[in-house]
Amino acid sequence: MTLTTSNYNYKYKNRGMGLENDINVSNKYYLDNNIAVIYKKPTPITIDKVNFPSRKDAIITEAHFKTPSTTDYNGIYKGKYIDFEAKETKSKTSFALSNIHNHQIEHLRKIINMGGIGFIIVRFTSLNKTFYLSANNLFSFIQKENRKSIPIEYFENNGYLIKEKLRPLVDYLDIVERDIG
Amino acid sequence: MTLTTSNYNYKYKNRGMGLENDINVSNKYYLDNNIAVIYKKPTPITIDKVNFPSRKDAIITEAHFKTPSTTDYNGIYKGKYIDFEAKETKSKTSFALSNIHNHQIEHLRKIINMGGIGFIIVRFTSLNKTFYLSANNLFSFIQKENRKSIPIEYFENNGYLIKEKLRPLVDYLDIVERDIG
Repeated sequence: MTLTTSNYNYKYKNRGMGLENDINVSNKYYLDNNIAVIYKKPTPITIDKVNFPSRKDAIITEAHFKTPSTTDYNGIYKGKYIDFEAKETKSKTSFALSNIHNHQIEHLRKIINMGGIGFIIVRFTSLNKTFYLSANNLFSFIQKENRKSIPIEYFENNGYLIKEKLRPLVDYLDIVERDIG
Repeated sequence: MTLTTSNYNYKYKNRGMGLENDINVSNKYYLDNNIAVIYKKPTPITIDKVNFPSRKDAIITEAHFKTPSTTDYNGIYKGKYIDFEAKETKSKTSFALSNIHNHQIEHLRKIINMGGIGFIIVRFTSLNKTFYLSANNLFSFIQKENRKSIPIEYFENNGYLIKEKLRPLVDYLDIVERDIG
């Protein structure tokens, strides 16, 4: 069944986008308070057909989603390069590694080797728990364990629970401070 | 007159995209040789209509270009955050500031304040000359001069000419080294 929706923004973009929205709001807080400059990258797409009287008025009439080659978020914090991926899961027990593309993991590996700060943020929506896991601890898990998903205990023991605050909503830089600083 | 093209990639994307292509190739060189991890961000668009049996097979059937709120390129070099915009001009005498959005300049200002490396790369295509201009020198010009375009002499006197090489094609990190290092 093919579904065509004209209210994509509502129906599709907000599907499982609670964490994304919370992080965007937090990034806005960091930006407005001169704490960090961190943005979500635009969704990578391939544009196939454009109807354009001018670029300003152009309407893209055919495009496809591309597999991202990097993580979704990057920016600068205290002069340092920061890079991360954020994902939600409905599971109460584990986070499936298939949620993160291999080249995103390879990207994080390059960032760490270059001296950057890299991590993932994972929200277990059914439990309303959001974790920070450093890229190094993610790599350790992948190297040691022959498993397709990371149990929640691994996040509890090797990551940090990000407590929900009023401002910013998801204060992951507070965790970066504790983890790196 | 409205033009609908089905070979957008050829007709439109390559229009004045010589510099963009050269930088992408250079970034690939930096990446492959573990020198830096720098990417061009995807073009920001607003997606309005999607036809999707599944996300994988989704076809975007209506979307619009958005004004970018940041620069096009960012990444990490020697642990440092790097951020820049790249533009071409056909003029032989000056670069119109209207080519760079105000919020892109504000973005560069925030990056510099945070301790990042920021600059612009401008190619005068008719002269086949490509310049590096630090964000600070860009800000100085805007502050001192009440002009809508930067004369090429300003690039010659305050920027660096990026000589074309074989590998990488546009070795802007060599200039970063000289400018910052």
